[in-house]
Amino acid sequence: MQSLAVALRSQGKLIALVPTRGSLHAGHRRLVEVAKKEADRVILSIFVNPHEFGPNEDLAQFPRDREGDLDFCREAGVDSVFMPCEKEMYPPGYSTWVEETRRAAGMCGLSRPHYFRGACTVYVKLFNIVRPDSVLMGWRDAQLAAVVRKMVEDLNFPVDITMVETVRAEDGVALNARNAYFDDFQRRDAPVIHNALLKGKELVDSGITNVDRVLAEITHHMSQNRRIRLIYVSAVDRMTMEPVRQIEPGRTLLAAAAWCDQVRLIDNVLV
Amino acid sequence: MQSLAVALRSQGKLIALVPTRGSLHAGHRRLVEVAKKEADRVILSIFVNPHEFGPNEDLAQFPRDREGDLDFCREAGVDSVFMPCEKEMYPPGYSTWVEETRRAAGMCGLSRPHYFRGACTVYVKLFNIVRPDSVLMGWRDAQLAAVVRKMVEDLNFPVDITMVETVRAEDGVALNARNAYFDDFQRRDAPVIHNALLKGKELVDSGITNVDRVLAEITHHMSQNRRIRLIYVSAVDRMTMEPVRQIEPGRTLLAAAAWCDQVRLIDNVLV
Repeated sequence: MQSLAVALRSQGKLIALVPTRGSLHAGHRRLVEVAKKEADRVILSIFVNPHEFGPNEDLAQFPRDREGDLDFCREAGVDSVFMPCEKEMYPPGYSTWVEETRRAAGMCGLSRPHYFRGACTVYVKLFNIVRPDSVLMGWRDAQLAAVVRKMVEDLNFPVDITMVETVRAEDGVALNARNAYFDDFQRRDAPVIHNALLKGKELVDSGITNVDRVLAEITHHMSQNRRIRLIYVSAVDRMTMEPVRQIEPGRTLLAAAAWCDQVRLIDNVLV
Repeated sequence: MQSLAVALRSQGKLIALVPTRGSLHAGHRRLVEVAKKEADRVILSIFVNPHEFGPNEDLAQFPRDREGDLDFCREAGVDSVFMPCEKEMYPPGYSTWVEETRRAAGMCGLSRPHYFRGACTVYVKLFNIVRPDSVLMGWRDAQLAAVVRKMVEDLNFPVDITMVETVRAEDGVALNARNAYFDDFQRRDAPVIHNALLKGKELVDSGITNVDRVLAEITHHMSQNRRIRLIYVSAVDRMTMEPVRQIEPGRTLLAAAAWCDQVRLIDNVLV
């Protein structure tokens, strides 16, 4: 992969990277579409990074569909798929870690303390192997993208991060590999998270900028459903993930994580 | 600097980087000489990295000689000097760190817990800015080089690390910016560290491979001088810095750190 990337760059080709954990869906298709407009070659990576998962998390169950993913990539017009195995990425004795300590501190960083370190490390590896000019990330992973942007800036990687809109099912649920864990009853209740965020957005649209008022509305709405357990809901700057004191329409993100029974979901809306 | 590097690479030029903290001396000249043989363009960086220094260390006093260093680079035939200021490298709010946890754990990692994290971070930044094909490092910094090699391998940087022999004064003292701290009396005693390591090497040359026996000889020799306070002396694999159980001639490094009054020195010999 690295030789291919170096060869492409020496031919002056622009490379776009779509980093994924497989289980490809319409959200990834959107990333590929944007990537094709930005670059001469689109490389999609598929790697379920064990170091993003904590000891009690769902690494073993995380959905994997090699053949389906490859079919998807062919249809979507991906130029190359980079699909390393775990031993190639983390050979025995692996010992180097990359950590962003500010944007990664709050929200998911509190409940998943290992997650961003694992993600930053694998992104640095992917950047060095694929040598992309631009990297496509989805707004659903707003905090991850903010952390990666900061890491890129701090470590001087010559890489642009392009953010792409979250793709949702008709009922509003953000597309996401973990949706595969749901039974029909759970899937029916999953939209509550997005709907609660929209309730918050409605308040902002009606002129309310008080953070506590808006977050309390979201919390209240989620608490009405017996499957949903809120982990956090925050009003943060959409780019830096710093908590805001007052909601600034166009710049504030309402971001939440919640359990829907045993499935952990994140979502956010820009207000 | 990054634009220059990208332009050089697109012309197919090989870039060698000589990373330094300034106070350039004949050891650096040797690095530049080797670099000139390996690459089309030699870039020398000068940056006293504050994050390599602990709160009670010598950051403020560390010798700086901008004009002397630039004269040195002209004479040595360096093609470009990269000399960023601290605010360019670490703007306010800087928050990303790179850490190697295995080779950095022992020896200097014990007494300078901040050092290798600061060094790894700045090397990643330099690699991304200067985009070198090869990086020149001296054997005096054997543990640093081992840590950086491991980081390069783990993070998949397409960079070769070339090791260059330590350059010594006539009395055996390894050239080093901190030698400038010595008064005449201290400078007269500084060779004790290297001489003690050579006593260890003599034992190995005479057929002794017992680690304890060799290290005790070195410790004993240093303890004879009233200015010298030994911090550690270890017999380690020359490439991995893992402590060895038995000395293997040609593969074992005897490495030490010691105070000569208030000046901390490191040195090593291959046995």
